[in-house]
Amino acid sequence: MADVVSLVQGVLGGNIRSIAKSISLVENDLPEKEELLKKIYPHAGKAVIFGITGPPGSGKSTLLDRLIKTNRGRGKKVAVAAVDPSSPFSLGAILGDRIRMQSHAADPGVYIRSMASRGHLGGVASATIDTVKILDAAGFDYIFIETIGVGQAEVEVATLSDVVLLVLIPGMGDEIQAMKAGVMEIGDIYVINKKDLDGADRLKAEIEYILNLANGNSCPLHPVKMVSAEKNEGIDELVSTMDEYVDHMKSNGALMERRKENIKKELQTLISSKVRHLLENRFSISECLECWAEDIFNGEIDPYSMIQENITSKLAEKELPS
Amino acid sequence: MADVVSLVQGVLGGNIRSIAKSISLVENDLPEKEELLKKIYPHAGKAVIFGITGPPGSGKSTLLDRLIKTNRGRGKKVAVAAVDPSSPFSLGAILGDRIRMQSHAADPGVYIRSMASRGHLGGVASATIDTVKILDAAGFDYIFIETIGVGQAEVEVATLSDVVLLVLIPGMGDEIQAMKAGVMEIGDIYVINKKDLDGADRLKAEIEYILNLANGNSCPLHPVKMVSAEKNEGIDELVSTMDEYVDHMKSNGALMERRKENIKKELQTLISSKVRHLLENRFSISECLECWAEDIFNGEIDPYSMIQENITSKLAEKELPS
Repeated sequence: MADVVSLVQGVLGGNIRSIAKSISLVENDLPEKEELLKKIYPHAGKAVIFGITGPPGSGKSTLLDRLIKTNRGRGKKVAVAAVDPSSPFSLGAILGDRIRMQSHAADPGVYIRSMASRGHLGGVASATIDTVKILDAAGFDYIFIETIGVGQAEVEVATLSDVVLLVLIPGMGDEIQAMKAGVMEIGDIYVINKKDLDGADRLKAEIEYILNLANGNSCPLHPVKMVSAEKNEGIDELVSTMDEYVDHMKSNGALMERRKENIKKELQTLISSKVRHLLENRFSISECLECWAEDIFNGEIDPYSMIQENITSKLAEKELPS
Repeated sequence: MADVVSLVQGVLGGNIRSIAKSISLVENDLPEKEELLKKIYPHAGKAVIFGITGPPGSGKSTLLDRLIKTNRGRGKKVAVAAVDPSSPFSLGAILGDRIRMQSHAADPGVYIRSMASRGHLGGVASATIDTVKILDAAGFDYIFIETIGVGQAEVEVATLSDVVLLVLIPGMGDEIQAMKAGVMEIGDIYVINKKDLDGADRLKAEIEYILNLANGNSCPLHPVKMVSAEKNEGIDELVSTMDEYVDHMKSNGALMERRKENIKKELQTLISSKVRHLLENRFSISECLECWAEDIFNGEIDPYSMIQENITSKLAEKELPS
């Protein structure tokens, strides 16, 4: 059993070992988890949380590497929670990215953590939320939640942030075309990476056109910035844009609103995760699953009646007094 | 209120209107849903369920179109449950695909249904499971669950089938390379589409090499078939392979095992979905969320204590007698 009080003290003091240990505790869902998080929570709220997402191949990790360097250069502490979906379609690419980011391994002002997805994404979302609180309480100024924009669930994790950076590159053809339909709901700042590629200007114009349409030209636009992470071009300007965007959100109350919205989303995720756990234990679902499936397979009962008999009715009779 | 008994009779008689109405009832989670499914379930189990997945751009829908035509040509009834993730990165492409499949609209032996993802993927997975049961009971010989392989959750839906077709194309570079790491767990039959493209032979050789390695050369390999859906080449052979594969699975007991495994996966999905619903109602989560978030935002309580006070403790005290 980890000593929660000293672990929390370590985290608040920015001790990397304590931070790593706390995140593992959260990821592995150990019994001390809730006590730890209750003690951590009041100390969170000072960091700015950036979500960074975009399709595979858009160069998010290289960009993130640049953003870390630039922010370190001005004395900011930066942490990354990288969400690895275990999708078969992205596994290797992500591993490669992580290795690239090892260049910061020796810098105590940088902490990079991969959130492994074990089995279900609900679990990762919940662990990511908790991890961000730990990193926030540990005194990091900027925390990036990096996700590969490969599926709905993965993209949603990135929106549990103050500001979402959507990274795109020219020439992704149909997929980018298609993506535009949903683009408005996600990004706060649009980053066109690999700006030297053909079609970068057109992509920028198209995004701006769509953003204009959606806004009815009335509210200030989301910034669309062109960079080349590879060549380290446009990064300083992007960092300034990010600062200004956050300042603007602070001054007009948008940041407060966003955080309130995120608390709601986080609560829902945490509730689902917690309840899944409770029920798993209460009804010994893992142990019973085998024999339930056997009965269903043999045609003795259908799954809907099975659930009603073994779970729903037991929950309902005791707990719906009114 | 729909009359469930006559609806079920319609479904069992293969009436398209009844099928469509039943699926809508399931998708919209109407009160009659469980009664309907309990009556439907005993009549399911005769169809062969194929999952078909692969990265965006691999030509799944064109291939599916060919498979439908070929199977119709030999008198088989075919249904498709197409899972649309509302990922911003694939929206448009999918819509395009659906339109293409409209060519079967006039054929009563073909039924194509898009499973819209509203909000959360757990909901789609659960609705897809129910929809497949309805289509199965309605007498379709082959049912395809088509998903875009963009995220973990999306891919998982495709595995709720008897046989998974993984569709790949040459020249997708890094992403296919990366995908290989996880490829073994998903596919039963590997389909290399656009076989005229450069690199098709190499992709086939690579997949076979990896499959050989993983099998230790001991068990019969998963088939790797080359087709061109566009040019209608290799489709008959693929259909024969699919038949043989299913026959083989039937004779060696693998199909039975797969179906038992799927019942377990389905139960877990249905339980999650059901419980989410129950709790939502019991604790009025949607209504309370706003004020809970407000209290958390104001620092009066942390989310972990909030969940414990409002949900966990209420569940626990009444329901953990032993």
